[in-house]
Amino acid sequence: MQRFSSSAIHGSSSMSTMSTYDHQSAVTVLGLGPMGRALAGAFLDAGLRTTVWNRTPGRDRELTERGAAAAPTAAEAARASALTVVCVVNYDASDAVLREEETATALKGRTVVNLSADTPGRARDTGDWAARHGVHYLDGAIMTPAPTIGTSDAVFLHSGPRELYLRHKPVLDALGGSHTHLGEDIGRAAGYDIALLDLFWTAMAGYAHALAVARAEGITGRELAPFAQGIAAILPPLIEEFAGDADDGTYSGDLNPITSAASSMAHIVHASEAHGIDAGVMRTVEGQARRAIALGHGTDGFMRVTELLGRH
Amino acid sequence: MQRFSSSAIHGSSSMSTMSTYDHQSAVTVLGLGPMGRALAGAFLDAGLRTTVWNRTPGRDRELTERGAAAAPTAAEAARASALTVVCVVNYDASDAVLREEETATALKGRTVVNLSADTPGRARDTGDWAARHGVHYLDGAIMTPAPTIGTSDAVFLHSGPRELYLRHKPVLDALGGSHTHLGEDIGRAAGYDIALLDLFWTAMAGYAHALAVARAEGITGRELAPFAQGIAAILPPLIEEFAGDADDGTYSGDLNPITSAASSMAHIVHASEAHGIDAGVMRTVEGQARRAIALGHGTDGFMRVTELLGRH
Repeated sequence: MQRFSSSAIHGSSSMSTMSTYDHQSAVTVLGLGPMGRALAGAFLDAGLRTTVWNRTPGRDRELTERGAAAAPTAAEAARASALTVVCVVNYDASDAVLREEETATALKGRTVVNLSADTPGRARDTGDWAARHGVHYLDGAIMTPAPTIGTSDAVFLHSGPRELYLRHKPVLDALGGSHTHLGEDIGRAAGYDIALLDLFWTAMAGYAHALAVARAEGITGRELAPFAQGIAAILPPLIEEFAGDADDGTYSGDLNPITSAASSMAHIVHASEAHGIDAGVMRTVEGQARRAIALGHGTDGFMRVTELLGRH
Repeated sequence: MQRFSSSAIHGSSSMSTMSTYDHQSAVTVLGLGPMGRALAGAFLDAGLRTTVWNRTPGRDRELTERGAAAAPTAAEAARASALTVVCVVNYDASDAVLREEETATALKGRTVVNLSADTPGRARDTGDWAARHGVHYLDGAIMTPAPTIGTSDAVFLHSGPRELYLRHKPVLDALGGSHTHLGEDIGRAAGYDIALLDLFWTAMAGYAHALAVARAEGITGRELAPFAQGIAAILPPLIEEFAGDADDGTYSGDLNPITSAASSMAHIVHASEAHGIDAGVMRTVEGQARRAIALGHGTDGFMRVTELLGRH
């Protein structure tokens, strides 16, 4: 701690709010990618005593200029605060930091909030490691991009011991946006994260493909965009309706039976391939629809495939 | 015409608005699936003299009770109006109706608006057929579900001769919502339709998969839905931004490089397959991302794949 405490100079604009946090509210950020830097910046903006570390040096200059303390090792960074927030590329990376012996020792009796992204299984495994090593552990997921951090648009999901979450929520609130505790199961935030990223990246793949098909038809992205935004606008009520369908096992196809959906999908495949555009994603989706029809669900809605994806 | 004109009784609630349309504004609807019935219903609600036909009998009862004239053949239905709207499952079906000799003869000098869905190529082929047979032809697409027809939420796209579109727009406006003429190329509405359905159905496939993964993680659809709606809410600005990227060939990965997206996709694949859930769609999407990275685009954003889908 001594080696870097001299650089822990908080900017004057932050000093006025610092008094709302006691020493226990000091926070450490491990990992200074775009998201880690945004997290540390939000803590600094809130006047928190913020210590930062990154495996690759040189990522901390702007933060130290704003008052962050730069630690030479993850262990020293961990010792500086009661709460350490980790945000690295995945759990291979976060395990490499946290499970290093000196860091693990430093974290004993302290709290880690791991905002790195990975699978629920990896989150549970790290939760088990933390329990074995006396580290208080919360897992979390950030659902919005780095520029939202510190603003009302940020969305954070958390899972793990509720008491631990509530104890650290005042510091986490410095990150802005909404924070939701999803349950005690440490893998739950990652479960939501995976499912929501599944929706997001599949939709993005659909849009990338739509732009390619549109271009081949002489339609520019800017011409298509307002109508594509119209498609996005009809999703929220469908998302709610289909969630209920999935929970209840009822998949009404009254308005749009899966046979009609499969017909649309075939048109998309044919129109794409007529332009030499790969239609692998839509071929797979159409295959799911055809399989549901073959199993006798042709008059159901497309969301029936939710039931079939796990059956082999 | 004589065979069914006696049934052309318009309800009294419609009579008051009928005077705003002359005889030329009578309209025929061929195809009485859920969408065709909604179209005919909206025309009736607007007080238009509406004639209907469906290949399979028995779909017209509710409409005739509301004042529609039921024609025994498509040809007789076509002769009843200056404008015929076709809404059947695809262009195999619409060609089977329109290109039948008696129907084609009946349509000569009249206008067809084909609101059936298919590929741009099929729309152009039918446009060519119409030109050869003296049939005035507009192609269209309905982007919203049947319950929106007749309301402000309905979205219609049209392509073909602008003069023809403007001539019939007063009748088409009876369908409610917004009508956009996209250009003279008869395939243009189908091009937009294909691209927009590509986005829609790919996103729906992503949501169906997300619900399956969530369920395997003990997360219900109703628990996931509010957060999934949050994902949908962040799409419109991204849609606009990425459209510009695609047009300009710039794919900034400053906030989210494709390497990071590929990492998320790998997590989704692993988490899915750990539960025995098929991850074929996301495997294909991840493959697109990996290919972009292999081609040296790792620091670009994911939408770079738009450029690569057409290269083999």
